[in-house]
Amino acid sequence: MVTALETLIEALKRLPGVGQKSAQRMAYHLLQHDRDGAARLSLALRAAAEQIGHCRRCHTFSETEICSICADVSRDPALLCVVESPADQAALERTNSYRGYYFVLLGRVSPLDGVGTAQIGAAELLLRAAETGVAEVILACSFTAEGEATAHVLGEALRSRGIRATRLARGVPVGSELEYVDLGTIAHALVDRR
Amino acid sequence: MVTALETLIEALKRLPGVGQKSAQRMAYHLLQHDRDGAARLSLALRAAAEQIGHCRRCHTFSETEICSICADVSRDPALLCVVESPADQAALERTNSYRGYYFVLLGRVSPLDGVGTAQIGAAELLLRAAETGVAEVILACSFTAEGEATAHVLGEALRSRGIRATRLARGVPVGSELEYVDLGTIAHALVDRR
Ligand SMILES: [Zn+2]
Ligand SMILES: [Zn+2]
Repeated sequence: MVTALETLIEALKRLPGVGQKSAQRMAYHLLQHDRDGAARLSLALRAAAEQIGHCRRCHTFSETEICSICADVSRDPALLCVVESPADQAALERTNSYRGYYFVLLGRVSPLDGVGTAQIGAAELLLRAAETGVAEVILACSFTAEGEATAHVLGEALRSRGIRATRLARGVPVGSELEYVDLGTIAHALVDRR
Repeated sequence: MVTALETLIEALKRLPGVGQKSAQRMAYHLLQHDRDGAARLSLALRAAAEQIGHCRRCHTFSETEICSICADVSRDPALLCVVESPADQAALERTNSYRGYYFVLLGRVSPLDGVGTAQIGAAELLLRAAETGVAEVILACSFTAEGEATAHVLGEALRSRGIRATRLARGVPVGSELEYVDLGTIAHALVDRR
C-alpha cells in the first residue's frame, strides 16, 4: 500500500535537485513543523498551474494573454532580446540596463534531446523580428555549447533575412548560465554587445 | 501586485534548505517542464496534510489512529525504543535489527527554543514505559548536545521509576543526526547498547 507520506515524498522528488533524502526531510519537516506551509504550497502550485500561461507575443510566463513587458509601450521597439528562459529574462530585467522587448525561447537547441529550432519557437521569432521597427535582435543565449549553437543557428537565420543580430559581449563568463551571473557583468556585456 | 509566480516562489522557500535561487529554479522548472509534477505535488501536499496525523500510542506519523508498528502484535513488547523523529524511526526500521516498539518524541529538549520535556511528550512516555511487559527503554536520541540532554533527562526520570533505560552504543558518530548514519553503524550500535 502506498501511503500519503510515500506519495508526498515521490512528488517532492520531481523538484529539480531534490533526491530521496531531501524529499523525505522536506516531507517530515512540513508534517511536523509547518502544516501551514504545506497548505500554502499546495494552493500556490495549483494556482500557478491554473493561472500561469505564456505571453502570446514573447512566450514568457504570463498570467495575461500579453505580458506586462510586451504591453509596455514606453519600451524601445527597435531592440528585441532573445533569451532561453523566463529566469534569464528576469536576470536581464534586474540589471535595469535594457529597455527593449524580449523573445523567450523556453529552451535551447539540443539535438541529442530532440530539441530543434521548431521546439524553441524559431519560426515565431523570425516573424516577430521581421515586424516593422525592429532594428536589432540581441541573442542573449547562454555561453554554453548548446546556447552558442542556438545563437549561431538563430543568428544565421536572422542575417539571411537581412535582420541585424548581435550577441552579448563575452564579459559573461564562458560556460556559465546567464541566470547565475552577477548583474554588473550582465549590464557590461549588454553595452559591449557585438 | 503579487503574482501567482511570486506566491509560488515564496511558498517553495518554506521548504527546508530552499532559498530564493532554488525556489525560483524549482518554480520555473515546474511551469516550463513539469506541470504534471506541479499538479501531483499540490494534491500530495493536500492529501498528506489531511490524512496524516499522529499514532495515539507512539506519536509517529500515521494515517490510522494506531500505527502499523504499534498494531503489530508479533513485535517484542519488552523493548521500547525512544527516537526524536519519524525519520529516525524509519532509519532504525531499515536496519532490520530491532523488533520492539517505539515512542517518537517529535523533538528534543532545547531550553533556548522553549522546548521542554512537556513539548516532547515525556509524561506520555513515562506512562507508556510503565506498562506491564516493558523491560527496557532504549534512548535512541541523536548524539548531539540537545539529543544527549534529552536522553539524560528521560533516562533519569525512567530510572527513578525503576525502569531500565539504555542508550545506543557510541558506534554512532558523535555530533551526527541518526537519520544520516549508515545502516550498518546503527545496527551495530543497537547490539552494543549500554
Ligand atoms: Zn510578452
Ligand atoms: Zn504507533
